[in-house]
Amino acid sequence: MRDFSADHRWLSLNTATVRKQGDLVQIIEACARHGIRAIDPWRDQVAGVGLDRAVRAIGDAGLELSGYCRGGMFTSDAARRREVRDDNRRAIDEAKALGAPCVVLVVGGLPQFSRRGSTPSRDIGAARAQVEDAIAEMLAYAGEVGMPLAIEPLHPTYAADRACINTTRQALDICDRLDPGRTGLLGVALDVYHIWWDSEVLSQIARAGKDRLLAFHVCDWLVPTKDMLNDRGMMGDGVIDIRALRAAVEAQGFCGYSEIEIFSNAWWDQPIDDVLRTCIARHRTVV
Amino acid sequence: MRDFSADHRWLSLNTATVRKQGDLVQIIEACARHGIRAIDPWRDQVAGVGLDRAVRAIGDAGLELSGYCRGGMFTSDAARRREVRDDNRRAIDEAKALGAPCVVLVVGGLPQFSRRGSTPSRDIGAARAQVEDAIAEMLAYAGEVGMPLAIEPLHPTYAADRACINTTRQALDICDRLDPGRTGLLGVALDVYHIWWDSEVLSQIARAGKDRLLAFHVCDWLVPTKDMLNDRGMMGDGVIDIRALRAAVEAQGFCGYSEIEIFSNAWWDQPIDDVLRTCIARHRTVV
Repeated sequence: MRDFSADHRWLSLNTATVRKQGDLVQIIEACARHGIRAIDPWRDQVAGVGLDRAVRAIGDAGLELSGYCRGGMFTSDAARRREVRDDNRRAIDEAKALGAPCVVLVVGGLPQFSRRGSTPSRDIGAARAQVEDAIAEMLAYAGEVGMPLAIEPLHPTYAADRACINTTRQALDICDRLDPGRTGLLGVALDVYHIWWDSEVLSQIARAGKDRLLAFHVCDWLVPTKDMLNDRGMMGDGVIDIRALRAAVEAQGFCGYSEIEIFSNAWWDQPIDDVLRTCIARHRTVV
Repeated sequence: MRDFSADHRWLSLNTATVRKQGDLVQIIEACARHGIRAIDPWRDQVAGVGLDRAVRAIGDAGLELSGYCRGGMFTSDAARRREVRDDNRRAIDEAKALGAPCVVLVVGGLPQFSRRGSTPSRDIGAARAQVEDAIAEMLAYAGEVGMPLAIEPLHPTYAADRACINTTRQALDICDRLDPGRTGLLGVALDVYHIWWDSEVLSQIARAGKDRLLAFHVCDWLVPTKDMLNDRGMMGDGVIDIRALRAAVEAQGFCGYSEIEIFSNAWWDQPIDDVLRTCIARHRTVV
Protein backbone atom coordinates (compact mmCIF):
# COMPACT_ATOMS: atom_id res chain seq x y z
CA MET A 1 0.00 0.00 0.00
CA ARG A 2 1.35 3.39 -0.95
CA ASP A 3 2.44 5.78 1.77
CA PHE A 4 0.51 9.04 1.40
CA SER A 5 1.81 10.63 4.59
CA ALA A 6 4.72 12.53 3.09
CA ASP A 7 3.08 14.33 0.18
CA HIS A 8 -0.07 14.59 -1.92
CA ARG A 9 1.29 13.33 -5.21
CA TRP A 10 -1.71 11.01 -5.60
CA LEU A 11 -4.43 13.41 -4.56
CA SER A 12 -6.90 14.34 -7.28
CA LEU A 13 -9.63 16.90 -6.74
CA ASN A 14 -13.08 16.21 -8.07
CA THR A 15 -14.08 19.73 -8.94
CA ALA A 16 -17.60 19.33 -7.55
CA THR A 17 -15.95 19.56 -4.12
CA VAL A 18 -15.52 23.32 -4.61
CA ARG A 19 -18.17 23.97 -7.25
CA LYS A 20 -19.73 26.84 -5.33
CA GLN A 21 -16.45 28.69 -4.75
CA GLY A 22 -15.48 29.42 -8.34
CA ASP A 23 -15.54 28.42 -11.98
CA LEU A 24 -13.34 25.71 -13.41
CA VAL A 25 -10.51 28.09 -14.28
CA GLN A 26 -10.49 29.49 -10.77
CA ILE A 27 -10.49 25.95 -9.37
CA ILE A 28 -7.54 25.03 -11.58
CA GLU A 29 -5.67 28.11 -10.36
CA ALA A 30 -6.37 27.07 -6.77
CA CYS A 31 -5.06 23.58 -7.47
CA ALA A 32 -1.86 25.09 -8.85
CA ARG A 33 -1.45 27.17 -5.66
CA HIS A 34 -1.68 24.00 -3.55
CA GLY A 35 0.41 21.67 -5.69
CA ILE A 36 -2.55 19.49 -6.62
CA ARG A 37 -1.63 17.60 -9.77
CA ALA A 38 -4.90 16.12 -10.95
CA ILE A 39 -8.60 16.92 -11.17
CA ASP A 40 -11.82 15.27 -12.25
CA PRO A 41 -14.01 18.01 -13.74
CA TRP A 42 -17.78 17.92 -14.22
CA ARG A 43 -19.39 18.55 -17.58
CA ASP A 44 -21.37 21.57 -16.41
CA GLN A 45 -18.20 23.16 -15.05
CA VAL A 46 -16.40 22.56 -18.35
CA ALA A 47 -19.35 23.99 -20.24
CA GLY A 48 -19.34 26.98 -17.90
CA VAL A 49 -15.94 28.16 -19.15
CA GLY A 50 -16.12 26.50 -22.57
CA LEU A 51 -14.41 23.28 -23.62
CA ASP A 52 -11.51 24.95 -25.44
CA ARG A 53 -10.69 27.20 -22.51
CA ALA A 54 -10.90 24.24 -20.12
CA VAL A 55 -8.49 22.24 -22.29
CA ARG A 56 -6.05 25.17 -22.35
CA ALA A 57 -6.28 25.85 -18.62
CA ILE A 58 -5.67 22.20 -17.78
CA GLY A 59 -2.73 22.04 -20.18
CA ASP A 60 -1.21 25.31 -18.97
CA ALA A 61 -1.41 24.10 -15.37
CA GLY A 62 0.12 20.74 -16.29
CA LEU A 63 -2.79 18.94 -14.64
CA GLU A 64 -3.68 15.33 -15.23
CA LEU A 65 -7.26 14.08 -15.13
CA SER A 66 -8.41 11.16 -12.99
CA GLY A 67 -11.76 10.94 -14.75
CA TYR A 68 -14.53 12.97 -16.34
CA CYS A 69 -17.88 13.39 -14.58
CA ARG A 70 -20.15 12.27 -15.88
CA GLY A 71 -21.95 10.19 -18.46
CA GLY A 72 -25.03 8.13 -17.88
CA MET A 73 -28.57 8.99 -16.79
CA PHE A 74 -29.52 6.34 -19.31
CA THR A 75 -33.05 5.71 -18.13
CA SER A 76 -35.78 7.52 -19.98
CA ASP A 77 -38.91 6.86 -21.92
CA ALA A 78 -38.67 5.92 -25.58
CA ALA A 79 -38.99 9.48 -26.86
CA ARG A 80 -35.77 10.51 -25.15
CA ARG A 81 -33.50 7.59 -26.06
CA ARG A 82 -31.75 9.25 -28.97
CA GLU A 83 -31.17 12.38 -26.89
CA VAL A 84 -29.63 10.19 -24.16
CA ARG A 85 -27.38 8.42 -26.64
CA ASP A 86 -26.18 11.60 -28.27
CA ASP A 87 -25.61 13.29 -24.92
CA ASN A 88 -23.39 10.41 -23.83
CA ARG A 89 -21.44 10.44 -27.06
CA ARG A 90 -20.71 14.11 -26.48
CA ALA A 91 -19.46 13.23 -23.01
CA ILE A 92 -16.98 10.81 -24.58
CA ASP A 93 -15.86 13.40 -27.13
CA GLU A 94 -15.32 15.97 -24.39
CA ALA A 95 -13.41 13.46 -22.25
CA LYS A 96 -11.16 12.75 -25.23
CA ALA A 97 -10.51 16.45 -25.80
CA LEU A 98 -9.68 16.92 -22.13
CA GLY A 99 -7.37 13.92 -21.95
CA ALA A 100 -9.43 12.07 -19.35
CA PRO A 101 -8.57 8.43 -18.61
CA CYS A 102 -12.25 7.46 -18.36
CA VAL A 103 -15.82 8.72 -18.31
CA VAL A 104 -17.53 8.06 -14.98
CA LEU A 105 -21.08 6.74 -15.43
CA VAL A 106 -23.89 7.59 -13.04
CA VAL A 107 -26.43 5.39 -14.70
CA GLY A 108 -29.75 6.91 -13.65
CA GLY A 109 -32.57 5.61 -11.50
CA LEU A 110 -36.23 5.51 -12.45
CA PRO A 111 -36.80 7.35 -15.74
CA GLN A 112 -38.83 10.22 -14.31
CA PHE A 113 -35.84 11.29 -12.19
CA SER A 114 -33.07 10.47 -14.64
CA ARG A 115 -34.56 12.41 -17.55
CA ARG A 116 -37.21 14.81 -16.34
CA GLY A 117 -40.47 14.56 -18.16
CA SER A 118 -40.15 10.83 -18.80
CA THR A 119 -43.20 8.70 -18.04
CA PRO A 120 -43.12 7.74 -14.33
CA SER A 121 -42.36 4.13 -13.47
CA ARG A 122 -41.81 2.03 -10.35
CA ASP A 123 -40.16 -0.78 -12.31
CA ILE A 124 -36.54 -0.72 -11.17
CA GLY A 125 -35.91 -4.02 -12.94
CA ALA A 126 -36.85 -2.44 -16.25
CA ALA A 127 -34.60 0.53 -15.46
CA ARG A 128 -31.70 -1.83 -14.86
CA ALA A 129 -32.27 -3.61 -18.14
CA GLN A 130 -32.37 -0.27 -19.95
CA VAL A 131 -29.12 0.80 -18.31
CA GLU A 132 -27.34 -2.31 -19.46
CA ASP A 133 -28.57 -1.91 -23.04
CA ALA A 134 -27.48 1.72 -23.06
CA ILE A 135 -24.02 0.95 -21.68
CA ALA A 136 -23.60 -1.68 -24.39
CA GLU A 137 -24.45 0.92 -27.02
CA MET A 138 -22.18 3.54 -25.46
CA LEU A 139 -19.36 1.02 -25.18
CA ALA A 140 -19.35 0.52 -28.96
CA TYR A 141 -18.72 4.24 -29.44
CA ALA A 142 -16.21 4.32 -26.57
CA GLY A 143 -14.30 1.53 -28.27
CA GLU A 144 -14.09 3.46 -31.53
CA VAL A 145 -12.35 6.37 -29.84
CA GLY A 146 -10.57 4.44 -27.07
CA MET A 147 -12.23 5.99 -24.04
CA PRO A 148 -12.84 3.66 -21.06
CA LEU A 149 -16.17 3.78 -19.24
CA ALA A 150 -16.27 3.50 -15.44
CA ILE A 151 -19.59 2.41 -13.97
CA GLU A 152 -20.04 4.00 -10.55
CA PRO A 153 -22.26 1.97 -8.25
CA LEU A 154 -24.15 4.47 -6.11
CA HIS A 155 -25.32 3.98 -2.53
CA PRO A 156 -28.78 2.38 -2.40
CA THR A 157 -30.10 5.67 -1.03
CA TYR A 158 -29.92 6.93 -4.63
CA ALA A 159 -31.55 3.91 -6.28
CA ALA A 160 -34.70 5.79 -7.24
CA ASP A 161 -33.36 9.09 -8.44
CA ARG A 162 -29.72 8.78 -9.46
CA ALA A 163 -28.51 5.24 -10.10
CA CYS A 164 -30.14 1.82 -10.06
CA ILE A 165 -26.71 0.14 -10.02
CA ASN A 166 -26.12 0.05 -6.27
CA THR A 167 -23.45 -2.51 -5.50
CA THR A 168 -20.01 -3.36 -6.80
CA ARG A 169 -21.31 -6.83 -7.58
CA GLN A 170 -24.05 -5.44 -9.82
CA ALA A 171 -21.61 -3.20 -11.68
CA LEU A 172 -19.12 -6.03 -12.18
CA ASP A 173 -21.86 -8.37 -13.39
CA ILE A 174 -22.54 -5.86 -16.16
CA CYS A 175 -18.83 -5.51 -16.92
CA ASP A 176 -18.48 -9.28 -17.22
CA ARG A 177 -21.47 -9.57 -19.54
CA LEU A 178 -20.55 -6.66 -21.82
CA ASP A 179 -16.78 -6.96 -21.75
CA PRO A 180 -15.94 -10.58 -20.97
CA GLY A 181 -12.48 -10.16 -22.49
CA ARG A 182 -11.49 -7.42 -20.00
CA THR A 183 -10.36 -5.12 -22.76
CA GLY A 184 -9.80 -2.24 -20.36
CA LEU A 185 -12.69 -0.32 -21.89
CA LEU A 186 -15.20 -1.10 -19.14
CA GLY A 187 -14.74 -1.07 -15.39
CA VAL A 188 -15.87 0.59 -12.20
CA ALA A 189 -15.37 3.84 -10.33
CA LEU A 190 -15.49 3.01 -6.62
CA ASP A 191 -16.36 5.76 -4.17
CA VAL A 192 -15.99 4.80 -0.52
CA TYR A 193 -19.19 6.72 0.26
CA HIS A 194 -21.22 4.39 -1.91
CA ILE A 195 -19.61 1.06 -1.08
CA TRP A 196 -18.34 1.14 2.51
CA TRP A 197 -21.50 -0.45 3.99
CA ASP A 198 -21.46 -3.48 1.65
CA SER A 199 -20.58 -6.75 3.36
CA GLU A 200 -19.31 -8.05 0.02
CA VAL A 201 -17.17 -5.07 -0.91
CA LEU A 202 -13.75 -6.61 -0.24
CA SER A 203 -14.47 -9.80 -2.16
CA GLN A 204 -15.94 -7.79 -5.03
CA ILE A 205 -12.88 -5.54 -5.20
CA ALA A 206 -10.78 -8.70 -5.48
CA ARG A 207 -13.10 -9.93 -8.22
CA ALA A 208 -12.73 -6.62 -10.08
CA GLY A 209 -8.97 -6.82 -10.26
CA LYS A 210 -6.73 -4.13 -11.67
CA ASP A 211 -8.34 -4.25 -15.15
CA ARG A 212 -11.70 -3.12 -13.83
CA LEU A 213 -10.59 -0.61 -11.16
CA LEU A 214 -10.64 2.61 -13.16
CA ALA A 215 -11.15 5.18 -10.39
CA PHE A 216 -11.16 5.46 -6.60
CA HIS A 217 -13.02 8.26 -4.82
CA VAL A 218 -12.93 9.26 -1.18
CA CYS A 219 -14.95 11.32 1.27
CA ASP A 220 -16.71 10.17 4.47
CA TRP A 221 -20.12 9.14 5.81
CA LEU A 222 -21.33 11.43 8.58
CA VAL A 223 -23.58 10.38 11.45
CA PRO A 224 -26.06 11.95 11.44
CA THR A 225 -26.31 12.74 7.74
CA LYS A 226 -28.50 15.82 7.49
CA ASP A 227 -29.06 15.86 3.73
CA MET A 228 -29.35 12.84 1.47
CA LEU A 229 -27.17 14.33 -1.26
CA ASN A 230 -25.17 17.26 0.04
CA ASP A 231 -23.93 16.31 3.50
CA ARG A 232 -20.94 14.15 2.67
CA GLY A 233 -18.04 14.38 5.04
CA MET A 234 -14.38 15.30 4.83
CA MET A 235 -12.22 12.20 5.18
CA GLY A 236 -11.75 11.45 8.87
CA ASP A 237 -14.95 13.15 10.01
CA GLY A 238 -17.16 10.09 9.55
CA VAL A 239 -17.33 6.36 10.03
CA ILE A 240 -15.71 4.92 6.90
CA ASP A 241 -12.54 2.87 7.26
CA ILE A 242 -11.08 4.56 4.19
CA ARG A 243 -7.64 3.06 4.52
CA ALA A 244 -8.99 -0.50 4.52
CA LEU A 245 -10.74 0.19 1.21
CA ARG A 246 -7.70 1.85 -0.33
CA ALA A 247 -5.60 -1.12 0.79
CA ALA A 248 -8.05 -3.44 -0.95
CA VAL A 249 -7.91 -1.64 -4.31
CA GLU A 250 -4.14 -1.24 -4.13
CA ALA A 251 -3.78 -4.95 -3.33
CA GLN A 252 -5.27 -5.50 -6.79
CA GLY A 253 -2.64 -3.27 -8.35
CA PHE A 254 -4.59 -0.02 -8.52
CA CYS A 255 -2.02 2.75 -8.62
CA GLY A 256 -4.05 5.75 -9.73
CA TYR A 257 -5.24 8.86 -7.99
CA SER A 258 -7.18 8.98 -4.78
CA GLU A 259 -9.87 11.41 -5.87
CA ILE A 260 -11.61 13.59 -3.31
CA GLU A 261 -15.27 14.16 -4.11
CA ILE A 262 -17.32 15.86 -1.40
CA PHE A 263 -20.83 17.14 -1.99
CA SER A 264 -21.34 19.24 1.10
CA ASN A 265 -23.31 22.36 1.86
CA ALA A 266 -20.94 22.92 4.78
CA TRP A 267 -17.72 22.72 2.76
CA TRP A 268 -19.18 24.71 -0.13
CA ASP A 269 -19.54 27.55 2.36
CA GLN A 270 -15.79 27.59 3.14
CA PRO A 271 -13.07 29.52 1.27
CA ILE A 272 -11.51 27.38 -1.45
CA ASP A 273 -7.99 27.58 0.00
CA ASP A 274 -9.22 26.35 3.39
CA VAL A 275 -11.00 23.42 1.75
CA LEU A 276 -7.94 22.43 -0.26
CA ARG A 277 -5.62 22.73 2.74
CA THR A 278 -7.94 20.43 4.70
CA CYS A 279 -8.18 17.97 1.81
CA ILE A 280 -4.40 17.77 1.61
CA ALA A 281 -4.00 17.32 5.37
CA ARG A 282 -6.61 14.56 5.52
CA HIS A 283 -5.21 12.88 2.42
CA ARG A 284 -1.91 12.57 4.26
CA THR A 285 -3.33 11.47 7.62
CA VAL A 286 -6.48 9.40 7.11
CA VAL A 287 -6.65 8.35 3.44
CA MET B 1 -51.76 -13.62 -4.03
CA ARG B 2 -54.41 -12.54 -1.59
CA ASP B 3 -56.96 -9.93 -2.61
CA PHE B 4 -56.80 -7.03 -0.16
CA SER B 5 -59.22 -4.81 -2.06
CA ALA B 6 -62.40 -5.77 -0.23
CA ASP B 7 -61.38 -5.40 3.40
CA HIS B 8 -58.45 -4.89 5.74
CA ARG B 9 -58.47 -8.22 7.49
CA TRP B 10 -54.70 -8.57 6.98
CA LEU B 11 -53.69 -5.06 7.93
CA SER B 12 -51.58 -4.77 11.06
CA LEU B 13 -50.55 -1.42 12.51
CA ASN B 14 -47.03 -0.96 13.75
CA THR B 15 -47.73 1.40 16.61
CA ALA B 16 -44.73 3.61 15.83
CA THR B 17 -46.82 4.89 12.92
CA VAL B 18 -48.92 6.93 15.35
CA ARG B 19 -46.54 7.17 18.28
CA LYS B 20 -46.89 10.93 18.59
CA GLN B 21 -50.70 10.90 18.64
CA GLY B 22 -51.33 8.91 21.82
CA ASP B 23 -50.18 6.23 24.20
CA LEU B 24 -50.52 2.54 23.47
CA VAL B 25 -53.97 2.26 25.07
CA GLN B 26 -55.24 5.17 22.99
CA ILE B 27 -53.74 3.59 19.87
CA ILE B 28 -55.47 0.29 20.67
CA GLU B 29 -58.78 2.13 21.11
CA ALA B 30 -58.28 3.80 17.73
CA CYS B 31 -57.59 0.43 16.10
CA ALA B 32 -60.84 -0.87 17.56
CA ARG B 33 -62.73 2.09 16.08
CA HIS B 34 -61.35 1.28 12.64
CA GLY B 35 -61.67 -2.50 12.72
CA ILE B 36 -57.92 -3.05 12.72
CA ARG B 37 -57.28 -6.52 14.07
CA ALA B 38 -53.54 -6.60 14.72
CA ILE B 39 -50.72 -4.40 15.94
CA ASP B 40 -46.96 -4.55 16.42
CA PRO B 41 -46.17 -2.50 19.52
CA TRP B 42 -42.80 -1.00 20.49
CA ARG B 43 -41.17 -1.69 23.81
CA ASP B 44 -41.11 1.94 24.90
CA GLN B 45 -44.82 2.24 24.15
CA VAL B 46 -45.55 -0.89 26.20
CA ALA B 47 -43.39 0.43 29.03
CA GLY B 48 -45.24 3.74 28.81
CA VAL B 49 -48.52 2.20 29.93
CA GLY B 50 -47.02 -0.77 31.81
CA LEU B 51 -46.75 -4.33 30.54
CA ASP B 52 -49.76 -5.64 32.49
CA ARG B 53 -52.02 -2.89 31.26
CA ALA B 54 -50.80 -3.42 27.70
CA VAL B 55 -51.55 -7.14 27.92
CA ARG B 56 -55.07 -6.41 29.23
CA ALA B 57 -55.81 -3.73 26.62
CA ILE B 58 -54.70 -5.99 23.78
CA GLY B 59 -56.76 -8.87 25.17
CA ASP B 60 -59.84 -6.74 25.78
CA ALA B 61 -59.69 -5.43 22.21
CA GLY B 62 -59.23 -8.93 20.81
CA LEU B 63 -56.12 -7.81 18.94
CA GLU B 64 -53.52 -10.14 17.55
CA LEU B 65 -49.86 -9.18 17.34
CA SER B 66 -47.81 -9.37 14.15
CA GLY B 67 -44.53 -8.90 16.00
CA TYR B 68 -42.87 -7.09 18.86
CA CYS B 69 -40.47 -4.20 18.22
CA ARG B 70 -37.74 -4.56 19.01
CA GLY B 71 -34.79 -6.56 20.23
CA GLY B 72 -31.24 -6.11 19.09
CA MET B 73 -28.79 -3.22 19.28
CA PHE B 74 -26.29 -5.95 19.97
CA THR B 75 -23.13 -4.00 19.22
CA SER B 76 -21.37 -2.51 22.20
CA ASP B 77 -18.04 -2.52 23.92
CA ALA B 78 -17.17 -5.33 26.32
CA ALA B 79 -18.42 -3.51 29.41
CA ARG B 80 -21.98 -3.43 28.08
CA ARG B 81 -22.37 -6.98 26.78
CA ARG B 82 -24.20 -8.37 29.80
CA GLU B 83 -26.55 -5.38 29.78
CA VAL B 84 -27.26 -6.04 26.09
CA ARG B 85 -27.94 -9.72 26.72
CA ASP B 86 -30.24 -9.08 29.66
CA ASP B 87 -32.08 -6.35 27.80
CA ASN B 88 -32.78 -8.71 24.92
CA ARG B 89 -33.95 -11.48 27.25
CA ARG B 90 -36.45 -9.05 28.73
CA ALA B 91 -37.66 -8.28 25.20
CA ILE B 92 -38.36 -11.99 24.72
CA ASP B 93 -40.17 -12.22 28.05
CA GLU B 94 -42.34 -9.22 27.20
CA ALA B 95 -43.10 -10.63 23.75
CA LYS B 96 -44.20 -13.86 25.38
CA ALA B 97 -46.48 -12.03 27.83
CA LEU B 98 -48.02 -10.04 24.98
CA GLY B 99 -48.58 -13.07 22.78
CA ALA B 100 -46.33 -11.86 19.97
CA PRO B 101 -45.42 -14.30 17.19
CA CYS B 102 -41.82 -13.02 17.02
CA VAL B 103 -39.37 -10.43 18.27
CA VAL B 104 -38.12 -8.16 15.49
CA LEU B 105 -34.37 -7.59 15.68
CA VAL B 106 -32.75 -4.30 14.68
CA VAL B 107 -29.23 -5.49 15.20
CA GLY B 108 -27.29 -2.28 15.75
CA GLY B 109 -24.58 -0.57 13.73
CA LEU B 110 -21.24 0.60 15.04
CA PRO B 111 -21.10 0.25 18.84
CA GLN B 112 -20.97 3.97 19.65
CA PHE B 113 -24.39 4.44 18.03
CA SER B 114 -25.99 1.18 19.10
CA ARG B 115 -25.18 1.54 22.80
CA ARG B 116 -24.24 5.12 23.59
CA GLY B 117 -21.01 5.50 25.47
CA SER B 118 -19.39 2.50 23.82
CA THR B 119 -15.87 2.98 22.51
CA PRO B 120 -16.08 4.36 18.96
CA SER B 121 -15.13 2.07 16.09
CA ARG B 122 -15.09 2.15 12.30
CA ASP B 123 -14.84 -1.64 12.03
CA ILE B 124 -18.16 -2.71 10.56
CA GLY B 125 -16.83 -6.23 10.02
CA ALA B 126 -16.24 -6.56 13.76
CA ALA B 127 -19.74 -5.22 14.41
CA ARG B 128 -21.19 -7.88 12.11
CA ALA B 129 -19.29 -10.64 13.89
CA GLN B 130 -20.53 -9.37 17.24
CA VAL B 131 -24.11 -9.29 15.98
CA GLU B 132 -23.94 -12.89 14.87
CA ASP B 133 -22.50 -14.04 18.20
CA ALA B 134 -25.19 -12.14 20.09
CA ILE B 135 -28.01 -13.55 17.97
CA ALA B 136 -26.65 -17.05 18.62
CA GLU B 137 -26.76 -16.36 22.34
CA MET B 138 -30.23 -14.82 22.19
CA LEU B 139 -31.48 -17.73 20.10
CA ALA B 140 -30.62 -20.19 22.85
CA TYR B 141 -32.90 -18.28 25.24
CA ALA B 142 -35.57 -17.82 22.56
CA GLY B 143 -35.58 -21.57 22.04
CA GLU B 144 -36.18 -22.22 25.73
CA VAL B 145 -39.36 -20.15 25.72
CA GLY B 146 -40.40 -20.76 22.12
CA MET B 147 -40.20 -17.21 20.80
CA PRO B 148 -39.04 -16.80 17.18
CA LEU B 149 -36.53 -14.08 16.30
CA ALA B 150 -36.93 -12.09 13.08
CA ILE B 151 -33.78 -10.38 11.82
CA GLU B 152 -34.73 -7.17 10.01
CA PRO B 153 -32.22 -6.16 7.37
CA LEU B 154 -32.14 -2.38 7.36
CA HIS B 155 -31.47 -0.13 4.37
CA PRO B 156 -27.75 0.54 3.92
CA THR B 157 -28.44 4.15 4.89
CA TYR B 158 -28.62 2.90 8.48
CA ALA B 159 -25.48 0.72 8.38
CA ALA B 160 -23.52 2.97 10.73
CA ASP B 161 -26.08 3.88 13.34
CA ARG B 162 -28.90 1.33 13.40
CA ALA B 163 -28.13 -2.00 11.73
CA CYS B 164 -25.08 -3.47 10.04
CA ILE B 165 -27.22 -6.24 8.50
CA ASN B 166 -28.29 -4.48 5.32
CA THR B 167 -29.48 -7.05 2.82
CA THR B 168 -31.81 -10.02 2.84
CA ARG B 169 -28.88 -12.15 1.72
CA GLN B 170 -26.84 -11.17 4.76
CA ALA B 171 -29.72 -11.89 7.14
CA LEU B 172 -30.40 -15.27 5.55
CA ASP B 173 -26.72 -16.19 5.66
CA ILE B 174 -26.90 -15.74 9.43
CA CYS B 175 -30.14 -17.72 9.63
CA ASP B 176 -28.57 -20.59 7.70
CA ARG B 177 -25.48 -20.63 9.89
CA LEU B 178 -27.30 -20.42 13.24
CA ASP B 179 -30.42 -22.41 12.40
CA PRO B 180 -29.52 -24.80 9.59
CA GLY B 181 -32.45 -27.04 10.49
CA ARG B 182 -35.01 -24.29 9.85
CA THR B 183 -36.66 -24.84 13.21
CA GLY B 184 -38.93 -21.84 12.79
CA LEU B 185 -37.11 -20.01 15.58
CA LEU B 186 -35.02 -17.77 13.31
CA GLY B 187 -36.06 -15.87 10.22
CA VAL B 188 -36.39 -12.41 8.75
CA ALA B 189 -38.71 -9.43 8.98
CA LEU B 190 -38.82 -7.84 5.54
CA ASP B 191 -39.80 -4.19 5.25
CA VAL B 192 -40.24 -2.96 1.68
CA TYR B 193 -38.55 0.32 2.65
CA HIS B 194 -35.32 -1.48 3.42
CA ILE B 195 -35.22 -4.04 0.62
CA TRP B 196 -36.94 -2.57 -2.46
CA TRP B 197 -33.71 -1.29 -4.04
CA ASP B 198 -31.90 -4.64 -3.86
CA SER B 199 -31.35 -6.31 -7.23
CA GLU B 200 -31.26 -9.67 -5.46
CA VAL B 201 -34.39 -9.24 -3.38
CA LEU B 202 -36.68 -11.55 -5.33
CA SER B 203 -34.22 -14.42 -5.46
CA GLN B 204 -33.45 -13.97 -1.76
CA ILE B 205 -37.16 -14.04 -0.85
CA ALA B 206 -37.38 -17.32 -2.73
CA ARG B 207 -34.35 -18.58 -0.84
CA ALA B 208 -35.96 -17.59 2.46
CA GLY B 209 -39.08 -19.63 1.89
CA LYS B 210 -42.07 -19.70 4.20
CA ASP B 211 -40.05 -20.95 7.20
CA ARG B 212 -37.92 -17.84 7.32
CA LEU B 213 -40.53 -15.21 6.39
CA LEU B 214 -41.72 -14.12 9.82
CA ALA B 215 -42.98 -10.60 9.11
CA PHE B 216 -43.74 -8.28 6.19
CA HIS B 217 -43.77 -4.50 6.63
CA VAL B 218 -44.94 -1.82 4.23
CA CYS B 219 -44.59 1.93 3.74
CA ASP B 220 -43.03 3.78 0.78
CA TRP B 221 -39.83 5.50 -0.33
CA LEU B 222 -40.35 9.18 -1.11
CA VAL B 223 -38.38 11.18 -3.65
CA PRO B 224 -37.00 13.42 -2.35
CA THR B 225 -36.56 12.00 1.14
CA LYS B 226 -36.14 14.98 3.43
CA ASP B 227 -35.06 13.17 6.59
CA MET B 228 -32.98 10.01 6.76
CA LEU B 229 -35.12 8.44 9.46
CA ASN B 230 -38.47 10.16 9.72
CA ASP B 231 -39.64 10.86 6.18
CA ARG B 232 -41.03 7.50 5.16
CA GLY B 233 -44.03 7.59 2.90
CA MET B 234 -47.59 6.30 3.00
CA MET B 235 -48.01 3.39 0.62
CA GLY B 236 -48.64 4.71 -2.86
CA ASP B 237 -46.90 8.05 -2.31
CA GLY B 238 -43.46 6.81 -3.30
CA VAL B 239 -41.57 4.67 -5.77
CA ILE B 240 -41.76 1.16 -4.32
CA ASP B 241 -43.55 -1.54 -6.28
CA ILE B 242 -45.12 -2.86 -3.06
CA ARG B 243 -47.40 -5.35 -4.73
CA ALA B 244 -44.53 -7.08 -6.52
CA LEU B 245 -42.81 -7.63 -3.18
CA ARG B 246 -45.98 -8.85 -1.48
CA ALA B 247 -46.53 -11.22 -4.40
CA ALA B 248 -43.02 -12.58 -3.90
CA VAL B 249 -43.46 -13.32 -0.18
CA GLU B 250 -46.92 -14.79 -0.73
CA ALA B 251 -45.56 -17.00 -3.52
CA GLN B 252 -43.45 -18.60 -0.78
CA GLY B 253 -46.55 -19.23 1.31
CA PHE B 254 -46.41 -16.22 3.60
CA CYS B 255 -49.96 -15.65 4.82
CA GLY B 256 -49.47 -13.30 7.75
CA TYR B 257 -50.24 -9.64 8.28
CA SER B 258 -49.16 -6.81 6.06
CA GLU B 259 -47.83 -4.50 8.75
CA ILE B 260 -47.80 -0.76 8.19
CA GLU B 261 -44.81 0.95 9.75
CA ILE B 262 -44.30 4.60 8.84
CA PHE B 263 -41.81 6.84 10.62
CA SER B 264 -42.90 10.24 9.38
CA ASN B 265 -42.83 13.70 10.83
CA ALA B 266 -45.62 14.58 8.39
CA TRP B 267 -47.95 11.74 9.39
CA TRP B 268 -47.19 12.16 13.09
CA ASP B 269 -48.67 15.65 12.73
CA GLN B 270 -52.02 14.28 11.51
CA PRO B 271 -55.00 13.20 13.68
CA ILE B 272 -54.86 9.50 14.44
CA ASP B 273 -58.22 8.73 12.79
CA ASP B 274 -57.13 10.40 9.56
CA VAL B 275 -53.91 8.39 9.52
CA LEU B 276 -55.73 5.10 10.10
CA ARG B 277 -58.36 5.86 7.45
CA THR B 278 -55.58 6.55 4.95
CA CYS B 279 -53.71 3.39 5.95
CA ILE B 280 -56.84 1.33 5.37
CA ALA B 281 -57.59 2.94 2.01
CA ARG B 282 -54.03 2.44 0.75
CA HIS B 283 -53.91 -1.12 2.09
CA ARG B 284 -56.90 -1.89 -0.09
CA THR B 285 -55.71 -0.05 -3.20
CA VAL B 286 -51.91 -0.19 -3.45
CA VAL B 287 -50.64 -2.88 -1.05
